[in-house]
Amino acid sequence: MPTYRLTLCYDGTRYDGWQKQGNTPKTIQQRLEAALSEALSQPVEAAGSGRTDAGVHARAQTASFRAETALSCGEILSALRGRLPEDIGAVSLEEAPPRFHARLNCKGKTYIYRIWNSESPNVFERRYLHFQPEPLDLDAMRKAAECLAGRHDFSAFCANPRLKKSAVRTLRPVVIERLGEEVRLRMTGSGFLYNMARIIAGTLLQVGLGLLDAAALPGILASGDRALAGPTAPAKGLTLWEVFY
Amino acid sequence: MPTYRLTLCYDGTRYDGWQKQGNTPKTIQQRLEAALSEALSQPVEAAGSGRTDAGVHARAQTASFRAETALSCGEILSALRGRLPEDIGAVSLEEAPPRFHARLNCKGKTYIYRIWNSESPNVFERRYLHFQPEPLDLDAMRKAAECLAGRHDFSAFCANPRLKKSAVRTLRPVVIERLGEEVRLRMTGSGFLYNMARIIAGTLLQVGLGLLDAAALPGILASGDRALAGPTAPAKGLTLWEVFY
Repeated sequence: MPTYRLTLCYDGTRYDGWQKQGNTPKTIQQRLEAALSEALSQPVEAAGSGRTDAGVHARAQTASFRAETALSCGEILSALRGRLPEDIGAVSLEEAPPRFHARLNCKGKTYIYRIWNSESPNVFERRYLHFQPEPLDLDAMRKAAECLAGRHDFSAFCANPRLKKSAVRTLRPVVIERLGEEVRLRMTGSGFLYNMARIIAGTLLQVGLGLLDAAALPGILASGDRALAGPTAPAKGLTLWEVFY
Repeated sequence: MPTYRLTLCYDGTRYDGWQKQGNTPKTIQQRLEAALSEALSQPVEAAGSGRTDAGVHARAQTASFRAETALSCGEILSALRGRLPEDIGAVSLEEAPPRFHARLNCKGKTYIYRIWNSESPNVFERRYLHFQPEPLDLDAMRKAAECLAGRHDFSAFCANPRLKKSAVRTLRPVVIERLGEEVRLRMTGSGFLYNMARIIAGTLLQVGLGLLDAAALPGILASGDRALAGPTAPAKGLTLWEVFY
């Protein structure tokens, strides 16, 4: 049975995240599997590169699935597009090596946290931006982020207090850039713990607002104590940007 | 009583257009006047540069109003932003000459009709784009649009059959450009009749799809017969881009 690799984008606003939960149609995975099963006239299970939280978006989520079909990739893509809701888009589809699995083979991911840093609201992209009208000290945020690069135990930046598996992940240097009135935090890592990208964003925002000293970050990271890090930034600002294999 | 000039943007998706109708809060004008009246603690009436249809967006609509207040322009703007819904944005506010009126003084407008011309859907800007996956012949559309430039009676491109006033308007050359998978029709004119921008867009789309010959346009324009022009393109693709004074 051939294996396929699918690239998806979605506006996560009205979903309870990627991961299916029982039979609720309010998850991306559930909507995707329903559309694939109908398009291919067989039950299809799809694996994602990882979960995205409720309200988080994806510019390029990767999913894998197996199916036996006479349809070409282009035909599957068309059939899928006709069956997905307007806030989930099938970007591309290709046949993958037989053992390809979107989660198990994932080498890393890039998340971008988008902040609208202006008193003038952004009406048209409001669903994808966290509004922060007060000025942000980007240099302080960059200084604070320095210690996060590298291989660390990120327990202080994880919302799951009873994490049994290792919390060690490798993060590349966080890129903080201003594009006009928008500030982007680009986080690329080997993997992300539950809420990790949003807790890093929330902590760096505290630094940018002058509520937390950049010099406190190494201590917070070393403590492994979630209570010392900043708040979890709102889901709407976060987009899964790219997945690496 | 000082006169103010306000620049607004809005996502028109959930509104019945600009123009207030009785007491329904589902128009932009009604929502704006309610916010201004509350912010300035007095009944405020706001004039727009013109109506936009239900579902049509604005990047820069202009409105004028008069009010007696001790607040500065910056303070009015802040108070207004705090009272407008998230799909209506107050961009800027300034004091205007005493007799300034957004509609009466309007010299012209630019509308842009945005078409997503790809088989791959655009999830993130879906509210502002008309989807047209079939290939479009832009050269034919440009040729068809040539005859529209200049001063003409645009009755054939007006949805109101019982128009009593003159249907003569002056249009600058329609600019048709491709930006990756997006095609934009930029229409600048002295004024636009009811549905005029959308009927021009719908007619040019017919030409782009090969359903109507570009050479037919001069005859359609000269006929003054709405039935000969193409369909009214969907409201969601249209944005009031700029207003000139």
